[in-house]
Amino acid sequence: MNFESIYHKPSSNYCFPLDNKTVVLRLRVSKKDNFENIKVIYEGKYLFYYNQKEKEMYKQYEDKMFIYYEIKIKLEDVRFVYVFLLIHNKKTYYYSEDGVTTSYDFKNAHYNCFQYAYINEIDVHKEVDWLKNSVFYEIFVDRFNSSNLNKSYINTKWGESVSSKSFAGGDLNGIIEKLDYLERVGVNTLYLTPIFSSISNHKYDINNYYEIDSQFGDKKTFKELVYKAHKKRMYVVIDGVFNHTSDLLSEFQDVIKNGIKSKFFNWFIIKGDFVDTVNINYETFSNCYYHPKFNTSNKEVQEYLINIGAYYVKEYDIDGWRLDVSDEASHDFWRNFRTQIKKIKKECFLVGENWHDASPFLQGDQFDSIMNYAFTKALLDYVAYENYDAKDISEQLNMLLIRYTTQVNNMMLNLLDSHDTDRFYTMVNKNKDKLLCATALTFMYVGIPCLYYGIEIPLEGGYDPDNRRCFLWTELDENSLYFKKLTEIIYLRKITTIKQGDIHIYSKNNLLYISRLDENYSYTLILNLSKKNCSFEEKGSVVIIHKANDFYIESNGFVVIKEKL
Amino acid sequence: MNFESIYHKPSSNYCFPLDNKTVVLRLRVSKKDNFENIKVIYEGKYLFYYNQKEKEMYKQYEDKMFIYYEIKIKLEDVRFVYVFLLIHNKKTYYYSEDGVTTSYDFKNAHYNCFQYAYINEIDVHKEVDWLKNSVFYEIFVDRFNSSNLNKSYINTKWGESVSSKSFAGGDLNGIIEKLDYLERVGVNTLYLTPIFSSISNHKYDINNYYEIDSQFGDKKTFKELVYKAHKKRMYVVIDGVFNHTSDLLSEFQDVIKNGIKSKFFNWFIIKGDFVDTVNINYETFSNCYYHPKFNTSNKEVQEYLINIGAYYVKEYDIDGWRLDVSDEASHDFWRNFRTQIKKIKKECFLVGENWHDASPFLQGDQFDSIMNYAFTKALLDYVAYENYDAKDISEQLNMLLIRYTTQVNNMMLNLLDSHDTDRFYTMVNKNKDKLLCATALTFMYVGIPCLYYGIEIPLEGGYDPDNRRCFLWTELDENSLYFKKLTEIIYLRKITTIKQGDIHIYSKNNLLYISRLDENYSYTLILNLSKKNCSFEEKGSVVIIHKANDFYIESNGFVVIKEKL
Repeated sequence: MNFESIYHKPSSNYCFPLDNKTVVLRLRVSKKDNFENIKVIYEGKYLFYYNQKEKEMYKQYEDKMFIYYEIKIKLEDVRFVYVFLLIHNKKTYYYSEDGVTTSYDFKNAHYNCFQYAYINEIDVHKEVDWLKNSVFYEIFVDRFNSSNLNKSYINTKWGESVSSKSFAGGDLNGIIEKLDYLERVGVNTLYLTPIFSSISNHKYDINNYYEIDSQFGDKKTFKELVYKAHKKRMYVVIDGVFNHTSDLLSEFQDVIKNGIKSKFFNWFIIKGDFVDTVNINYETFSNCYYHPKFNTSNKEVQEYLINIGAYYVKEYDIDGWRLDVSDEASHDFWRNFRTQIKKIKKECFLVGENWHDASPFLQGDQFDSIMNYAFTKALLDYVAYENYDAKDISEQLNMLLIRYTTQVNNMMLNLLDSHDTDRFYTMVNKNKDKLLCATALTFMYVGIPCLYYGIEIPLEGGYDPDNRRCFLWTELDENSLYFKKLTEIIYLRKITTIKQGDIHIYSKNNLLYISRLDENYSYTLILNLSKKNCSFEEKGSVVIIHKANDFYIESNGFVVIKEKL
Repeated sequence: MNFESIYHKPSSNYCFPLDNKTVVLRLRVSKKDNFENIKVIYEGKYLFYYNQKEKEMYKQYEDKMFIYYEIKIKLEDVRFVYVFLLIHNKKTYYYSEDGVTTSYDFKNAHYNCFQYAYINEIDVHKEVDWLKNSVFYEIFVDRFNSSNLNKSYINTKWGESVSSKSFAGGDLNGIIEKLDYLERVGVNTLYLTPIFSSISNHKYDINNYYEIDSQFGDKKTFKELVYKAHKKRMYVVIDGVFNHTSDLLSEFQDVIKNGIKSKFFNWFIIKGDFVDTVNINYETFSNCYYHPKFNTSNKEVQEYLINIGAYYVKEYDIDGWRLDVSDEASHDFWRNFRTQIKKIKKECFLVGENWHDASPFLQGDQFDSIMNYAFTKALLDYVAYENYDAKDISEQLNMLLIRYTTQVNNMMLNLLDSHDTDRFYTMVNKNKDKLLCATALTFMYVGIPCLYYGIEIPLEGGYDPDNRRCFLWTELDENSLYFKKLTEIIYLRKITTIKQGDIHIYSKNNLLYISRLDENYSYTLILNLSKKNCSFEEKGSVVIIHKANDFYIESNGFVVIKEKL
């Protein structure tokens, strides 16, 4: 037995409450070891020494090296203590805070058993309910749709190639005009890149957080957009740039003018008494002189930014904040931000832009979830770079699910691309079949699918600024086979079993299988990204089929099969 | 190579900032694998793709199965990203968020390198400075010393055996009388069990948090105690019972009377509309009807308790709160508690009573540290139960150091016993040599030594209430060999190298070695708990010696040796 592979950590993604009375436990073991049985032995703290309950755990996830056993336990006494019992080669082992041992002294368990000491309601990470049905659609506002191309600041003809200095004229009214269309596509949550006053086309350098940028519309237009979206049961999430700001923000201008005498001096992190924008003697985002970083350790800054966050929830009834460069701002700030925003609107979704393992941000006290760029990378490795075969991607997707709690996984924003990456369609050399395969995978995975505007054509685009091309409405054909297939995939998100069922990801004969299942049904995506046609045997009724029939799946094809259980 | 044993987790005890510019990194590998070299490859986020720095890591801790490499890195750009490079059998491996690979694509590192995205000052867990010199002394107030044995409530003759109902007459004036004595012992931080209004002798069931229990004194007496202690550069830490309260608390009494109509109903967690103290239909501590649990998810309760916490800091200038049953109260409460208390007095020490892995409480946003009962258990296994030999204890003590950050380790309250355990002296069958050995180990380990009143005699005592016997002042002999040896050990805490130096714990020939070292000196404790005399070879000047000479150490003896480096 490979003792060194065994891993569990209390109060982490390996042990967390789902609600006031339920905990999820996970245990990692080596794939090479065959256990006859793995159980959790548990009870309320004050009974454990005399009397123990047991429950068998089951294999839930399997990555490259490990199998992860899992169990969900409904508790009476939520002062939950436990140890694991492992049976391997007919020998019994115990696993506690002191590691793996061949015996366990329950009399002294108060020293070294595992525990979740008490489930306090306020510490439970609650899922935002409306996200269960959500399909995100990211809109880069200047490029999605323009209600009026007759505006003086426009310097690019709609549809021509764009540079970092292009202004194409997209606006909020343009989005309002397309709400019926978006409803037909099947998306229901608009995630807008920043809409506040800014001199750039992307508006990530905000100079007035309380103004809607006049290029995009005004306060009335934005109110109308939220109102009309809500009338259609659609949701609106906006982009908050709170880690840093624009050099044109009046508070930073005051510091430029008055140096250390400015009352805003400590709002930023500056070496020396005066700002030097040439040598950049202050902390920035991305080393840009025009992106001074806020000092989010400063309580005044926190208050200023939280007031902005609260204002848009109260005044415009927005449904969520996407938080730009959230990993570089302080945990303390995000905790206070969450507390205040959730006080106003419990169901306001807070999603961070963290590209890496974001565990410390996802304990229920800061974000609800993040943009799942680790998922993006896995799909690039599988579909675009072809570094992964079906087994590799299956193992990688399993690994990503173990990284976070059930709640966080359910709220993760799973995306193929965004305004910050090359377009996936371009990464797969404009292969629509591959794009549809990756999209189908996204919709079968746990979490919220997030589409980047233009996938309906699909729009091409390399790295920034090319990934921000204008939506070519003239090229849109809602009757095309591609559009039909895309919307069929999007429709999968309406199926309860797919939205809420358990997930099981595995591979066979270089086909990737993703099953979602509940008590009634299973839905299984079978995906073939190998170079050859592959046969499969699963029976059941076909929900969607692409380059496949009842016997085999062509290269870059897939099938979704439904079975009554 | 055992790939499965390799472990690192960003933003955890494996990667944390020491200050605004310094991070500590740790990497776990198998003891069975011999690595030629382990390095970290790192840079600021925006340079990493083009140019990487490297630093060799070194072996810092070694437990039963693993070696932990560590490195401290001073950063210029605190947007810190990194991967590990491991050389094993002349082959090169990389370790990133995607696991161990034989090559690494720095161009795509923004997807899967490890990172600590930005060190924000407010998130850095700062050490409480005065703790560096601190020796704790826990006083169970009713049993330490009485200034007046002529009080009506006393029902036990001082020194007679005590029951859970005994009142012996110890008081705050009794402590004041002994301040000179305590200074001679060498302790400088008094940790007092609860002193607030309560009907029990232990006073863990508090019915009025704003009153000093009249058995112990009054507000003036407590002020005098703190004042006189401070004059001697001593510190006072008091016991806060905030997880639960007494059934006699007026707010709970109001709920007993008015049920769901009471404005305090939601201060507690009650099933049904009325309190039933017979069937206990409410959450409690320890299933006791007279210990109703506070609902620390409730913001009013939080405010009530935080105000109490703040009051004693502002009004009495206390130096810390020991937080009773802290693991069962909500994280949200403790975060707010810390914020408010530290705002009043940055150097106020917050130490939790968590018996188990307390990682989620020790991220810098809740407690400074905890009572180190895992350390207690390790010493019991070594010295009392004799489950551990020198190798086992060395491995276990190493394992405990890896559990938390450097700052937390430096502030851990390392104790042999308390009012909640059997006395260590009793656990070792009244073997003073063993008690001295365990005490010496405590003073050489990383963290704050915490003595339980009476060890100077030493006092005996089994489990509660026997562990709360009266201090037998008539048996104290400050001229005894035992007392002399004890104070010699306590004096070790005054030596800078022992207080602040790196630690190295290992075993040889069934002797336990604990070395503390800085640039100038090393101090090494060599401990013999085997049944035989053991020879040792270390050279240097002897600082303390017990049952040992320059060549060998007797069973249950030790020596501390100083070397100039």
